[in-house]
Order: sequence, then C-alpha cells, then structure tokens
Amino acid sequence: MDSCVVPLRQGGLSLVQTTDFFYPLVDDPYMQGKIACANVLSDLYAMGVKTCDNMLMLLGVSNKMSDKERDTVVPLIIRGFKDLAEEAGTMVQGGQTVLNPWVTIGGVATTVCPPNEFIEPGNAVVGDVLVLTKPLGTQVAVNAHQWLDEPERWNRIRLVVSEEDVEMSYQVSMFLMSKLNRTAAKLMHKYNAHGATDITGFGLLGHAKNLVQHQKNEVSFTIHNLPIIAKMAAVAKACGNMFQLLQGYSAETSGGLLICLPREQAASFCKDIESEDGLQSWIIGIVEKGQRKARIIDKPRVIEVTPKIE
Amino acid sequence: MDSCVVPLRQGGLSLVQTTDFFYPLVDDPYMQGKIACANVLSDLYAMGVKTCDNMLMLLGVSNKMSDKERDTVVPLIIRGFKDLAEEAGTMVQGGQTVLNPWVTIGGVATTVCPPNEFIEPGNAVVGDVLVLTKPLGTQVAVNAHQWLDEPERWNRIRLVVSEEDVEMSYQVSMFLMSKLNRTAAKLMHKYNAHGATDITGFGLLGHAKNLVQHQKNEVSFTIHNLPIIAKMAAVAKACGNMFQLLQGYSAETSGGLLICLPREQAASFCKDIESEDGLQSWIIGIVEKGQRKARIIDKPRVIEVTPKIE
Repeated sequence: MDSCVVPLRQGGLSLVQTTDFFYPLVDDPYMQGKIACANVLSDLYAMGVKTCDNMLMLLGVSNKMSDKERDTVVPLIIRGFKDLAEEAGTMVQGGQTVLNPWVTIGGVATTVCPPNEFIEPGNAVVGDVLVLTKPLGTQVAVNAHQWLDEPERWNRIRLVVSEEDVEMSYQVSMFLMSKLNRTAAKLMHKYNAHGATDITGFGLLGHAKNLVQHQKNEVSFTIHNLPIIAKMAAVAKACGNMFQLLQGYSAETSGGLLICLPREQAASFCKDIESEDGLQSWIIGIVEKGQRKARIIDKPRVIEVTPKIE
Repeated sequence: MDSCVVPLRQGGLSLVQTTDFFYPLVDDPYMQGKIACANVLSDLYAMGVKTCDNMLMLLGVSNKMSDKERDTVVPLIIRGFKDLAEEAGTMVQGGQTVLNPWVTIGGVATTVCPPNEFIEPGNAVVGDVLVLTKPLGTQVAVNAHQWLDEPERWNRIRLVVSEEDVEMSYQVSMFLMSKLNRTAAKLMHKYNAHGATDITGFGLLGHAKNLVQHQKNEVSFTIHNLPIIAKMAAVAKACGNMFQLLQGYSAETSGGLLICLPREQAASFCKDIESEDGLQSWIIGIVEKGQRKARIIDKPRVIEVTPKIE
C-alpha cells in the first residue's frame, strides 16, 4: 500500500515510511515545492498518521538550466517544500541534490509510532461508505493550461471552456494539490475509518482497485459519484479517451484520500473537515459484499466543484 | 554530517536517517545494485549505527533503454541492492521507480535507536589517531577501466599500467565499493571511537575537512599515509591534476570510514576488522591541537594496496 510499516526492535513501536518523487507539472516553483511535499506526506496521512517525525528532500536539478535559472528556481522549490513541511508540523532534516537532465522533486516522510497512531488499510466492512477528500481532474486542468500556448490542442477544447475557465481550474488545481490531507488523517481516528488510500498516478479507480484488493473481508467498492473540478469533465470528454477521467483512471497529483468509513459516521466526517479546512468532501460510493473488485457505475453523477481558493 | 539525527517523541529514542542516490559507474548491474546499497548504509555506519531498521530503494530507469535492456538490467540492479541489504541484516521495504533520461540508483536507510547505539561525530581529542577502512582510488580505477576503450585517453596512462593492472584494479574497486562498513561501525563502540565520516564524493581530504569542522574540541587532522589501490597513484600522476588523488580530493564511491580513535585502541581496531572481514585498515594520521583544519603532509607515504577479492 502507500506506506511501509516496519515493526521496530523497541517494544510496540513501528516505523511508517514512504517516498515519492516526480517531475514538475506546474510553472510556479514555490507551489511545485509545496505540491511535492503534500504529495509525499499524503501516503502517511492515508495510514491515519497525523504526525510526521522527519522528512528528507530529494532534488534533481536540471543540467540544462542556466546558473541564473538554477539560482532562481531551486531556492523557491526548496522554500515551498519546507514551508509546507512546517505547516504539517514536521521538519526537513536531510536529503540529497543531484544534477539530472530533468528537474526532479520528491522526498521521504517517516514516523515512529505505536499501533494506535496508524490505521491499517484493510478493514472495510459491508455497509461502509467511501469518502473522497479532494475533487478529481488536476491532470486535466494542468494539461488544459499548457494548451493555452498550443493552438492545435487548444482548438480541441475551446468550444467547451474559456481561457478564464482554464486559468481558474489551474489555480484551483495548484491550491488543491498543495493542500495537506492532514485533517482527514486526524479525523480517520475520530470516526473509526476502516482504511484509506491516497489518489495519485493511477487515478481514482486505479487506487480504489488497489485498496479493495488489500481488504481482509470479501467486499467490493461501487462508486456512484465523481466530484470533479468545474468544467474539467467537459474538457476530458472533448479529448476523447485521452484522460479516462470519467472512467476513473485520470492521474492525480497529491489527490485526496479515499476513505472507508462506517456509514453513520461519514456525514459528520465530511462536516468536520469542511469546518476545519474549509474544503468539501464527498460520499462517492459504498462497500458491498463482493470479490474485492472496484467499479464506477455506468452513469455516475458528476459533481462540478469550484473550491474557494484561500 | 552523514546522517540526520532526530529526537523522537518516544522517550529517549532517536531517528537516524540518510539518503543517497547517484548514477551508475560500473558496467555490472548486479554489482551496481550492491554498491548503491553499501553506499547508502555507509552513512549510518559512520554514525556507529550497526543495525538498519529499514531501507527504501530509489530507482530511475532510463527512458532510452529498450524493453529488453530494461528487463535485463533493472532486475539485476534490484537483486544486488536487496542481496546486500540482506547481508547487512536489514530489508528493503518500500521505494519508488520512475522513468528518467539517466539511470539513477539510491536509497534511504533508517534506524530508530537509543543514544548508546549511535556515536556523535564531534568528540575527537588531541592524541587520537585517524583510521581509514578502505583504500582510495576507486574513481581512478573506474575511469582507467573505461579508457581501455578510448585509445586517446589510454595513451596517457599506458606507460604506467598494463591492461591487466587496470582490469584487476577495476575488479578490486567493485569489490571494495560493494563491501559494507558494518564491522567498522560495530567496532567503533568496542574501541570508543570519537567520531567518523564515510569517504565519498568529496574525497578523503574533503570529508576530513568536514569532519574536523564538526569537532567540539579545538583540534586539527594531519594525514601522513595514503593507502591507494595498487598502481592507481601512478595512473593519477600520469593524468596531471585531473583526479587530485594525492591531494586528497579524488571522489570515492562507497569508500571507507575515516574514524577518530584513541591512539592505544587503533591497532586493535585494525586487527579486529582484518580478522572479521579479511580487509586491512590503516592508521593514516593524527589529531592535534588546532583550529579545525585538515591537511595532508607534503610528501605523504603512499601505501600500494592489493586486497584479496573474495
């Protein structure tokens, strides 16, 4: 699953640890640093871990950058990463930087904790519901934004979105991707979550399938609702099968948590997150008896989402 | 220094953690995996940590490789890394693989331990001696080996080495680079080491300077002896100032530990390592009163080393 859990020699403690690194996808280095940090921490949060004890930063600096580009961009990436680590109540102590053809950014997040501080992902039961804590569509939004400068591609989507829509959805995406899933991790304990995963490169359904395969009980996941950043469903449709957004496979970066919650707790969970973070969450599906399959129903309800940017 | 040490919330325990990744330097993927693993662990060993609780593997697979190359090379790298982790008594649980223009290999090594399991590097006192646990010259040997296929460069060194010498020093280097510094870490406790560092990219003197700057006491390091893989001093000289091997700045990969030891313990330390690992160590210098400088004397004694390969 998202993090590894290693029992330690010291009585009852476990090491919970994760690493992730990728290539920049937004043109704002400071935000890119924040997004990379949020993305690494998300794997811990998916385990219900709310305190990270240390982060390492992994950086590949492009050997094709001029000295001036390097001296401008790299400190901003590092600052973004460190600022968000601080917001998460942790520190960046250690890491490595290398020269590489492509800019690379990522990190390692580690916590040491007793068993009651993390939540094993495999305890969903029939009757649970599935909650998602961020809307989908970040990759579509980031791509659409790049296409503003590529007339041929822009022509494919200009009938369904305006430049302003695209600019707005790009800003919304940066905001969402740099948002910590920490409140959700904390509330997973309060509301007795039975397991979770974070949504990243394999898309909602890809990660749902992985999570359901790790369940102890014979359950399946059925997803009815797709909360999507406003207009991005239309953009995805205009691009044919390219993104697979409505099929559940569009990649997300630093996406939300998908959480199995007891049905009677889910509404309170969503309400608490909204009052703490000002961000909506959604009940998007149910846990049924089954052979550990995950699916999206034939005509899912698309919920158009326009979060308020802080 | 080499690893970060983070005090944990759990009484008296610390998280000791390090990361390192780099680009392949030998043409044997299995050995390359071992070398990368040994190199990451070396940072923990320099702290006197002999038990690593978990490793993550970080892998960049070249997007320029054919499917066949990828399917041949990558499993061998991974196997080498994992085999050496096992030899070190630890496991690789977690990590990430990405596509990248250059092959990249590295990892993260983490341990959780009470204060008596690691040795702070800053306690050298006047009268200590400096011990080095692997000979220098790995970069020279690796380069000389590449030059066998580059007539122009080979011509620069063919008067001082034979092809057989170069082949042998390359095999010796692979053997040394894939050798764990674990026995040294263990013996640092037995013989009351006052601090250590591992020798990697900045060369012997580069890392000695870094270590001396972290000393609590007003001390300096003076290095008299340079143990060097046989013939590599001659190769370095034939190349002019290119390697800076005799000046102490030739990069090493997964080099030895440089350890500050009480004078009366150093000989026993070296003897113990030799009887456990079959590998020589050397007293290469002394700790004197000073302003935290490190230097190699004007005409250091070069010790030509030909380790027996297992």
